[in-house]
Amino acid sequence: MIKTERKLGRDVAVIGGAMSPFGVFPEKTSRDLMADAYTAALETVDKQLDPQDIEALYIGNFTSDLFEHQSHLGHLIADWLGLSPRPATRIEGACASSGLAFREGMMAIASGMYDIVLVGGVEKMSSASTEEVQEYLAVASDVQLEVEQAALTFPGIFAAIASAYFAKYGATREHLLRVAVKNHENGALNPNAQYNATLRDVMERRKETLQARGKPVPDWADEYDFLRDERANPVVAAPLHLFDCSPISDGAACMILAAAEVADNFTDEVVRIRASAQTSAPPPATWNSDLTSLPAVQAAARQAYDMAGVLPSDIDFAEVHDCFTPAEIIATEDLGFFQPGQGAVAAAEFQTARNSDMPINVSGGLKAKGHPVGATGLAQLQEVWHQLRGTAGQRQITHKDLRLGLTHNVGGTGGTCVIHILEHV
Amino acid sequence: MIKTERKLGRDVAVIGGAMSPFGVFPEKTSRDLMADAYTAALETVDKQLDPQDIEALYIGNFTSDLFEHQSHLGHLIADWLGLSPRPATRIEGACASSGLAFREGMMAIASGMYDIVLVGGVEKMSSASTEEVQEYLAVASDVQLEVEQAALTFPGIFAAIASAYFAKYGATREHLLRVAVKNHENGALNPNAQYNATLRDVMERRKETLQARGKPVPDWADEYDFLRDERANPVVAAPLHLFDCSPISDGAACMILAAAEVADNFTDEVVRIRASAQTSAPPPATWNSDLTSLPAVQAAARQAYDMAGVLPSDIDFAEVHDCFTPAEIIATEDLGFFQPGQGAVAAAEFQTARNSDMPINVSGGLKAKGHPVGATGLAQLQEVWHQLRGTAGQRQITHKDLRLGLTHNVGGTGGTCVIHILEHV
Repeated sequence: MIKTERKLGRDVAVIGGAMSPFGVFPEKTSRDLMADAYTAALETVDKQLDPQDIEALYIGNFTSDLFEHQSHLGHLIADWLGLSPRPATRIEGACASSGLAFREGMMAIASGMYDIVLVGGVEKMSSASTEEVQEYLAVASDVQLEVEQAALTFPGIFAAIASAYFAKYGATREHLLRVAVKNHENGALNPNAQYNATLRDVMERRKETLQARGKPVPDWADEYDFLRDERANPVVAAPLHLFDCSPISDGAACMILAAAEVADNFTDEVVRIRASAQTSAPPPATWNSDLTSLPAVQAAARQAYDMAGVLPSDIDFAEVHDCFTPAEIIATEDLGFFQPGQGAVAAAEFQTARNSDMPINVSGGLKAKGHPVGATGLAQLQEVWHQLRGTAGQRQITHKDLRLGLTHNVGGTGGTCVIHILEHV
Repeated sequence: MIKTERKLGRDVAVIGGAMSPFGVFPEKTSRDLMADAYTAALETVDKQLDPQDIEALYIGNFTSDLFEHQSHLGHLIADWLGLSPRPATRIEGACASSGLAFREGMMAIASGMYDIVLVGGVEKMSSASTEEVQEYLAVASDVQLEVEQAALTFPGIFAAIASAYFAKYGATREHLLRVAVKNHENGALNPNAQYNATLRDVMERRKETLQARGKPVPDWADEYDFLRDERANPVVAAPLHLFDCSPISDGAACMILAAAEVADNFTDEVVRIRASAQTSAPPPATWNSDLTSLPAVQAAARQAYDMAGVLPSDIDFAEVHDCFTPAEIIATEDLGFFQPGQGAVAAAEFQTARNSDMPINVSGGLKAKGHPVGATGLAQLQEVWHQLRGTAGQRQITHKDLRLGLTHNVGGTGGTCVIHILEHV
């Protein structure tokens, strides 16, 4: 009686999208960051869009409650963008908050309620101390079970994931290093990335700084040598080191969605949402499986491919949730791009580089682009949208035709997963 | 080009609904409270519903981040209810959070994505101190503008609203008292209400307590006399006194929605969602109007009546957002039930009592039923659903036929408003 087929009443398309610069912006609030992303997004609409034709807002945000001591962001952002009295709803799913906001915006249009919807995501993290950030991020896990009883932190859980993966497949830290190197290579081509530099650049700068201070300069042969040096890349939670972790970031991202039947009014380059899938999972401590795969991701991937009627091999490129380097490796396996255990090999052989058959995180990923948690899902989606339209600038994928792009956005340790497939029609 | 008509792709019906008891439950977390409401809601489904046929969850919650130091509630509640790996999304709009969750669930079904959706709302407030509650609730306002610069609190803003109303229309505290008396009369008939007692009962108990303690017992003639006594009913923010304010509460509410085309499988008493309207507004300090009306409510009411194709006079009864007694009075005006300035008169003459032509807050309202902020919207909606079906127990409205019931749920000081009209088909 209950249907298993997921089909929307009408198709939904993307007509605009952008991100604010990601980084550390002491003078900006969430509202300011959203205004930056919104202004930039309006400029990406090919034809005329009167902002007053936007009918509703969905704002993804993890915990401005803790970071800024400000909740009820929806109405404040609607006001700040000049869009009151339009409905404005905040959507929360930890680091997947704005992937979920995109999905809610899509369903609201598909329901017939609206034709044009603004979806945004934002987080302002840098005003908190590192200890506070650790404490605030922990509220995305099961605080009673995982924090109070097991004393787990997010780096701790992903370190356990890396260790389990190493033990099962014989991978090592050397595989992780290459994920970081590759994503910083991509970030170096993204002017909005928090780390708009290769790790070799980072190494050279470090050398210069040490020299300028009259300190001994290590004889690092290359960026790998640099990453292997505990002084340059200290341990955070073994086997994860500093450059295995995404940074603490401020930033926002924003997209404009429209019913497919009116999308032609705004663009000749229609990108439609081909699939949207969302799942949840219990805390990892209660899983029956090992930690080398996230059940919520596997389930969401199956649903997304079913809804789109495509196979993993049909996907031309993807933005995946690399909050830590091992997360990218297992994501490429859970999404079906590589066999279990082969994600690390693929990463080490740069089979996921920008000019490869399966480019992963050409934006720089969370690792280099930055990870303002509530903005990340939409930052991924707007990157895929730009790549599909051929407007990704210096980092545009040019060696292959792009038709289908996928985003993989995870909340907590896979407690929430949301996957989208966009198609250039 | 952009449509103004709000019409869903397919109709959505309610097939189950309940609330947990509201009150102070030191031993219960948000998850426990939601489980209580969910279990009760399942029991209200007339025919068989296999819980595994529920396809998605929307959880309204204001700030478990601050109250419980736990966010990412969606996946935890899905797990707790045995509904993993279903998608679970938290929706936030301050005190309107679960009215918005209901609306998102409705649109998700109307979009074609799901046939059956669970919508819940929860807040666990009582573990915080009174000072903390004040501080945490304040994050629903514009903290920079209203709290840091203007030092406003919610009782303070609603006191300003009451003062403006008094000045404009010549109303007095005597009008407010009657709202409290009426809502406690209703709460006395609601076994799930935090204050399951009339104010006369409260007065008698106070007398008994004082007598038992050997203290002087005031010679209160009736409950009005009691409320006028500053010792029994101290000032909170003039002209508001203690019994003008809704209490600090723990609680949850839950409803089950289904596509209208499958609703017959679950019930013969189909209640469908006839209208859903949501609006936002800037902070009150920036309004061009006076404080005797909430612009977001007026706008949402117009949209709701338009969508339903009905007039205010067609509504048979309503649950309105009486976080403070003056809020109920201006709500009944903004919703078009009474002319501006007449809401106070109507309240004082008990034209909104349970057995009147326009029963308002037969559940006891936020005032007597309690106000766990994230649960309130759905607590209103499940009350309207039960009244329409004739399953509201002792407080069932019996003197008139009920076809259309309205809920009015407000976030902050009207920063968010969401209005629903349910119809017994």
